[in-house]
Amino acid sequence: MDEETKTGFMREAIAEARNAAGAGEIPVGAVVVKDGEIIGRGRNRTEALKDPTAHAETEAIREAAKTLGGWRLTGCDMYVTAEPCVMCAGALVLARVRKAFIGTRNPKGGACVSLRGILQDERLNHAVEMEIGILQNECETVMKDFFAELRGAKRGRIKKSEDGNI
Amino acid sequence: MDEETKTGFMREAIAEARNAAGAGEIPVGAVVVKDGEIIGRGRNRTEALKDPTAHAETEAIREAAKTLGGWRLTGCDMYVTAEPCVMCAGALVLARVRKAFIGTRNPKGGACVSLRGILQDERLNHAVEMEIGILQNECETVMKDFFAELRGAKRGRIKKSEDGNI
Repeated sequence: MDEETKTGFMREAIAEARNAAGAGEIPVGAVVVKDGEIIGRGRNRTEALKDPTAHAETEAIREAAKTLGGWRLTGCDMYVTAEPCVMCAGALVLARVRKAFIGTRNPKGGACVSLRGILQDERLNHAVEMEIGILQNECETVMKDFFAELRGAKRGRIKKSEDGNI
Repeated sequence: MDEETKTGFMREAIAEARNAAGAGEIPVGAVVVKDGEIIGRGRNRTEALKDPTAHAETEAIREAAKTLGGWRLTGCDMYVTAEPCVMCAGALVLARVRKAFIGTRNPKGGACVSLRGILQDERLNHAVEMEIGILQNECETVMKDFFAELRGAKRGRIKKSEDGNI
C-alpha cells in the first residue's frame, strides 16, 4: 500500500481522536477500512458512554461489523492513532482484522509491542499484521496537546482556588 | 466469602451460559456482583449481535457500568463460567473489577492462567484478584454438552446429505 493511502486513512483516525479530545476523552481514534473504504469509525467514549469497553478500536470494530452484517472483519485493516491496549488488541484478533496500522506506541499500556505482543500470538487462531509509526508525530501531538491542556486546566483550578483563599 | 454465596452466583452465570447455548452461541455466561447483588448479566452474543466484542464478560461489564452510572466497577466481582480471553481479561482490568471467580480453564484461549496472566500484570494500573474452579464440573458440562450437540447436528446433516445422494 502506498504511503499516501496510509497517511490518508490515519488522518481520518486522527480526526476521530481530535473529536474525542474535544469531548474531554483521552484522544484515541480509529477507522476500519475494507477495499479502500472506511466501513467503521471509533473514538474513545468511555466517559460519555460510562462504558469501560468503549475504546476507539472496539467502537470502530463494532461499527464495521454492523456495516458488513457479520462479526468477522476478514480482509479489513484498522488505522489507530495509539497502540492498542490488551482489551483492544484481543478484540482485533477476535475480529480477524487483517492488519493494524498504528500511529504511536503506548509504553504504559500498549499490548502490541510495548508490554506484550498480542497481535502475533501463534497460540491464538488468528494473527494480525502490524505496522507502527504512521504519522507518528501527529498522533503523539494529539495526545500531548490533550494532557498539556488538562494540566493547564488543573493548574487554573488550583490557581483560582488559591485566589479564592486570599 | 462462603462457598454457598460463591456457588449461588456461579449458578446465575451458568444460567446465562445455558441461555447462550439455547441461542446457538458458544455457552459462556457472566454476572457482576456488588454488595451481594447482581448488577450486570452477560452471555456470549457474538452471532446474534454480529459483534465480535459481545462476549459474556464485556456484556456483563457494560450492563453493570450502566447500573452504577459510571465506568469504574470498583468493589465489584465477576462470576464467569469460563476463563476470560485476552480481550475480556483486558476489559476486567480496565473496569477495575475487584475479583474474578472463574468456573473452568480455557487452555486454548484463556488469558488469566492458561496462555497469559493478564489479570495480575503489575505493569498495568489495576490488578484483578482471581479464584478458579467454582462449580468447575458444571461449567465444563455446559461447554461439553454444547459441542457434543453441535457435532451431533453436523453428523446428522452429513448423514442426511449422504442419504440424499443414494
